[in-house]
Formats: sequence, structure tokens, C-alpha cells
Amino acid sequence: MDDGAALPHVVILGGGFGGLAAARALAGAPVRVTLVDRRNHHLFQPLLYQVATAGLSAPSIAAPLRQILRKQDNVTVLLDEALDVDLAAQRVHFAHEMLGYDFLIVATGATHAYFGHDDWARWAPGLKTLDDAFAVRRRVLLAFERAEREDHPARRQAWLNFVVVGGGPTGVELAGTLAEIARHTLPREFRRSDPRRARVLLVEAGPRLLPAFDPTLSAKAQRQLERLGVEVQIGTAVTAIDGEGVCLGNVPLEAYTVLWAAGVAASPLGRRLDAPTDRAGRVRVAADLSLPAHPEVFVIGDLACVECTDGTRVPGVAPAAKQMGRHVAARIRACLDADSTPAPFHYRDQGALATIGRMAAVAQFGRLRLSGPPAWWVWLLAHVYFLIGFRNRLVVLLDWAWAYWTYQRHARIVTGADAVDVPTADKRPSDIP
Amino acid sequence: MDDGAALPHVVILGGGFGGLAAARALAGAPVRVTLVDRRNHHLFQPLLYQVATAGLSAPSIAAPLRQILRKQDNVTVLLDEALDVDLAAQRVHFAHEMLGYDFLIVATGATHAYFGHDDWARWAPGLKTLDDAFAVRRRVLLAFERAEREDHPARRQAWLNFVVVGGGPTGVELAGTLAEIARHTLPREFRRSDPRRARVLLVEAGPRLLPAFDPTLSAKAQRQLERLGVEVQIGTAVTAIDGEGVCLGNVPLEAYTVLWAAGVAASPLGRRLDAPTDRAGRVRVAADLSLPAHPEVFVIGDLACVECTDGTRVPGVAPAAKQMGRHVAARIRACLDADSTPAPFHYRDQGALATIGRMAAVAQFGRLRLSGPPAWWVWLLAHVYFLIGFRNRLVVLLDWAWAYWTYQRHARIVTGADAVDVPTADKRPSDIP
Repeated sequence: MDDGAALPHVVILGGGFGGLAAARALAGAPVRVTLVDRRNHHLFQPLLYQVATAGLSAPSIAAPLRQILRKQDNVTVLLDEALDVDLAAQRVHFAHEMLGYDFLIVATGATHAYFGHDDWARWAPGLKTLDDAFAVRRRVLLAFERAEREDHPARRQAWLNFVVVGGGPTGVELAGTLAEIARHTLPREFRRSDPRRARVLLVEAGPRLLPAFDPTLSAKAQRQLERLGVEVQIGTAVTAIDGEGVCLGNVPLEAYTVLWAAGVAASPLGRRLDAPTDRAGRVRVAADLSLPAHPEVFVIGDLACVECTDGTRVPGVAPAAKQMGRHVAARIRACLDADSTPAPFHYRDQGALATIGRMAAVAQFGRLRLSGPPAWWVWLLAHVYFLIGFRNRLVVLLDWAWAYWTYQRHARIVTGADAVDVPTADKRPSDIP
Repeated sequence: MDDGAALPHVVILGGGFGGLAAARALAGAPVRVTLVDRRNHHLFQPLLYQVATAGLSAPSIAAPLRQILRKQDNVTVLLDEALDVDLAAQRVHFAHEMLGYDFLIVATGATHAYFGHDDWARWAPGLKTLDDAFAVRRRVLLAFERAEREDHPARRQAWLNFVVVGGGPTGVELAGTLAEIARHTLPREFRRSDPRRARVLLVEAGPRLLPAFDPTLSAKAQRQLERLGVEVQIGTAVTAIDGEGVCLGNVPLEAYTVLWAAGVAASPLGRRLDAPTDRAGRVRVAADLSLPAHPEVFVIGDLACVECTDGTRVPGVAPAAKQMGRHVAARIRACLDADSTPAPFHYRDQGALATIGRMAAVAQFGRLRLSGPPAWWVWLLAHVYFLIGFRNRLVVLLDWAWAYWTYQRHARIVTGADAVDVPTADKRPSDIP
């Protein structure tokens, strides 16, 4: 590639909130920017659970990176996956080529982790990519289909038992939505089984839901979930997951649909930057988000382990990633102006939001605490506002309004080779006629 | 299953236009209806090419069969695939159960055929299901991505050569849309390659495009396509397709993206009804659409080979399938009233429409012939009108308006395991760095 060009070359790995914010903040800067992502699209992850639960279609929360950046002439977008970084030679290695850099921004994020139980992945899909969301959607919709075909009462109930593991925002959102689907969306549509008999369990090993929130809001969130029909189990560890169900502590539960919303593991690229990492594989960066030994390399977003001035960790949320992206872009501009005084990153907490169901949510901004309808309206406006692209916002609003009044969910489409059987069906007793 | 129930049992195989119309026409009739489809959704196939070309998202043209029929209490929807029909015992065989029937309506449709070259399927995907559409979308979008990464001029051009095989409506629609994408949607977004250098070839073995239309319209369609930049090759047979490209007659062309819009093969179930079939496997039914030897079994839609009174064949289009569905529903109601005088099916030609690009289309209704903007407006209104579900119509209109003004296509999302590599890339020279 023409690394001979005059301008300094900034390589950004990852087109999530952090990488995209960095690229945009470098608009007009005297640099060549190359943004590399292994997907062709930026994903608005906060609404991914709605794709997984058939409330939104994928294009409503994903936009092609090329399209987002097409007017920024100093950016080249490449579809590829970085395999390694040669810090000494300042080169990124891909399967078929290398890319030299003057500045490197690593923003490859995190994925879900199974705490060393990788065999659970097959039975309990996580939720990080659009493909994950399609897999979850397929499992959930087919579970109700299989229940309709199952004559054996215990197995029919096992098809109607849904276990969501992890009491963070994603787990809360998934559980609340599943309960709504079972109680309001599907009942009229089945003749042999009754979707209202579905059980939705939300299992959290810690002492409360939404640990990032104020304890009073955790309690309110739990009450709102229980009002929706979700069974919340706090302080309960999942000790086993297989084709038959789960073990909660040492209590087995037959459940053919288990969803994983717990555990985060940083992108493996983090371990190849010869810098210290935390237990989850996040890179411990300097105060200015650069690598201790490499001021020209920055790590941002979920991949970075950053301490706030008050000693707490910067949370792995979109606003933090965006702030980091803008910070490193400013750092690079400063370096170009030969100003090498390392400015430390300061995280501005913009508050936290979690939705639970219709008119049910929790929110906190500094000392302000909201729950119920007020929090829900804030959540709705905030998420629509931050969605990328005018069209997406309009369509999402339309979808939500439609879903709100009709209780229907428009994306209830099962695709994929296994449109008839759930991926793991071969292992299920219910498959023997 | 409880075939012991009092009411006669009508089993409908297939939830396409024909099967769905039959089920709806049996609303309120003194029968139990079981509609079986191997997909959970009814697909509005006339717009499938727009999902394949990233103009629409899947849920906009597909609706769950359960949702469509939820208010019709005498219908049970099952997600399953019929493997065989026992005409003597009046039973349908599935993998895990059997279903007895008093009346059977077989509406399992057709898929694309490769004229005995099944090995072409791998290189030239067809377009019948949503999964087909996603595969085509992935190929097309990734071809432009690969061109951007390819330094070898000839191979870069091979990534920018698109061959559409088959000059029917689907082929015409695909070719026209691809030309628009290359010329209007993508150019600003690539830095190394120029999407405007893409070549879109539409290859038809017969003497003209759109054989179902009046010859004057075929010529007009060809002119409109050529104005969009499509290279139309008439009377040209494709003699080979592989990982390198195609042979047109005996002229080889390097093209890494080949789309198949030719050839139709009826559902294999048709051959298991011990009735005569035509070359494409369509079942030759009696004048009332029943099997010659089995008045209680009807075959409708693309699976049926029906002659009009004037000797021409009823075309494999949605209006014909719907008319057949309503006809057999009426026949069944008549039989229940002990009226066994077989009423023959009469096809009412509602005209033909094919779109080519923005403001470009052809239409004929009886003696009326339209092309260009008037035909395009008729096409647009007709397709939106016939789309299932108020919400879909609204969203589709919104998507189209947005795409029309911005030239953008909102569903340009690549998903699937091979989001980085095209499925066949392993066979491509361009993969060696």
C-alpha cells in the first residue's frame, strides 16, 4: 500500500462507537486515516436486543461505515480483520497485506465470555453482533413453534422456559421483552400451546440487577420486571448449561432456550500490544489512553481499562468510547503540532439508562433518578436521537409506534438453513417422534 | 393429531400466494384448516430482488403466517416440511408426524433450476427465498469491497463484472438495480477502485427480454436498461459458470459475481402425486385444479400446469396463484354442500408489470401498453397496494422515497460467517496476496 504518501498515516482498528468517533474527529486534519473493520457496518449496539427480539430489522440499527464516512475525504474504509500488530515496525498485519502506521488507534472492543465454559456458547448464544441477534431471534421464535408441535407436557414446557443469564442492561432488556412477546404478542396465534404459559427467568449471580445503577433503581427495575411476569433470581450462579437446560446453583431446570448476557472478554488483539491487561483482557493504558511504551499507539473503548480520577473504572458504554475516540483524535492533532505534553483523558459521566418494557425503564443522571414512564421516555428519545442516520430514526420511531399500539413485532422472520429446526434440535428428546 | 374431530380437515401445503389465498377464502367455512409451511413467514416475492440489492429489509416484504392468520379461528399454522403424500390413505407425511386430510391443497411452488448444471448453483445463486436474497446481497456488496482491496487490474475488473443470467422480470430488475448501485450509490464511497467501472451484463438465451410481454415492450425494456448502463446480450446461451467467470456462447468472461435468474423447477412434491407432470415438474391438473384421479386433492400456484381456454398456459405469477387458491376454496365449500359438479378454473389476466430502474418500467393491461414513468408509477402503486400489512406499506414507501432522493440503499448490511470473504473466495486467484 502507498505508505510513501506525504501525510502521516492514522490507522484505526474497529468501526464501533470509539473508532468511528476518532475517525470523524480527524476530519480535515492533515493525516491519511484508514479505518479497518471486519464488518461493513457500524452497529448501534444499544438496540441490538430489539433485533434479537424481532422488534427492529437489522438495517434500522446498522449503517455501512463507507456510507457514514463517504464525505470525509481523508478516510479510507477497509473491510478486513487485523491479526497482529508489529509495534517496533509500526505495522498492522492482515491475512493478505500489511498496513504501516504513524499513529494507531486500537478500538476492536469486546465480546461476551463464558467464564471458561466455552462449551456453553453452543447452548446459550450471546448478543454482540447482528449474527448473534439473528441466532437469538431464531431460537426464541422457533421455541414457540416447537412447543406448538410438542405433545409431551414436560417437554412442551421446556420449550416455553426461557432463561436469561446476566442481570446487566442487556439481560434486563431481553427478559422484559421476552415476557412481553409471550404475554402480548403471541397468545392469539397458537392453537395447541399457550405462549402465556412461558416462563422467563432472569438469573444474576451478583447481589442485584443493573450493578452500574443506584441500588434503589436496581430494586425498582426488579419490581418492574416482575410486574411484566419475569422471574428474577438474584445471587444465583449458573453452574451448568446443556441441551436439556440449566443448573441454577444445584437446582436443575429444563429449558431449551438459554440466552447469555453475562461476561465480557476484550478483543484478543489487546493481548498482542505487550502492555498489561486486566482479568478480562482489557489493556491498561496511560492516562492519555496511549500504550505506556508507545505514545503513538492508543487503545480506546471497551478494549481499554481506564481509571477515573476517583479510582472507579470508566464503564464500557457508548458515550465513554466516543469520548475516548475524540480524545485520542485531539492528541494526534496536538502531536502533529509538535505539542507532546500528554493530556490525560477525563471521563464525563452522561448518566445511565436501561429499558425494561413498555413505559418501564430506569435512568440516572448525576443525582437525578428516574424510573417508570419518565425514564422510559428519556430512554426512547435518547436512543432515537443517537441513532445514526435520519432515515433510521424515522423508521425506528415508526416501528416502535406500530409495535406499541398493535403489540406486534414486525421482524418475526426466521431465516437460515435451520429455519425449521433449532440449531441444537438434534440433541433434543423432543425430536424423537 | 386429533383427526377425530367432527369437521372436515383441509390441509394446505405451502403459505405462498396460492396457499394463503385458499386459507383466507375458507374463513368461516365449516372446516378445520391446517396450513403447513417450512418457513414461518409469507414472502412477497415480487419485491425479493430489492432485499437482494439492499433496497429493502427482509421484514418489509415478509410477514409471519401466524400473524396474518391469527384472527381466523379455523386455521392452525404449522412450521414443517411435507415429505410425501399417501393419496390412498389421505395422509401427509412429515419427519415426525402424519397429518390426515379430507381435502388437500398442494401449493409448494417452484424454485430455480440450473438445467442440469447443478454445480453452477455454487457460483451463481438464484433468488427464491430470503436466504437467497441475503446470499446475493452479500456477494454483490463484497464484490465491490474485494475490488477495493485488489491491486491486480484484471482481477479488480473481474470483481466489478456482474453477470445476470435470465431476461425475465427478476433478471431485468436485478440488472437495472445493480447498474444504479454502481453508478449512483457507491461511487463516492471507495478510494482505490471506481464502482462506475462496473460492468453489468444481462444475458438471455431467447430472442428477447421479458418474453411474457408484448415484443414492443421487450424492446422498450432493453432500451431503458441500456440507458441505465446495462449491457444486454440477447440470444446468448451461458455454456459454463465457475469460480473464474462465465462462458457466453464460447466467449469467456472473467466475472466473480454471477446471479441466476433463469429456469424454474416445480417443488419435488409434485412428482409424488402420481399425476402427469410437464418438463419443469409441474402437475397437470384437471380443469378444476384437482388431481385427475383424486377430486379431494388440488394443486395450485407455480406447482400447477394449467391451460387457459385459449390453449396458452396460466403464467406462474402471484395473481394466478391467488385466483387458484380462491377457486379451490370455493370448490371445497361446494363439495361440503354436496355440490360435486366440477367447476373449471378460469384465469383472469390482470396484466403484467416489470420494473427496470427509477422511472423505468414496462406494463401491459389487455391492449394497454405503458413504459417509462407511467409504467413505473403503476408498478409502484400496485406493489405497495398488494404488500401485506399496513406497516409494511408505510415503511416500504418511506424506504423508497428515501432511496429515491438520496440514491442510498439502507439495507447495505453484510452479515453471515463470511462477512469478510465471499463464499467462493477460497477458489479465487485474488486471494493469494
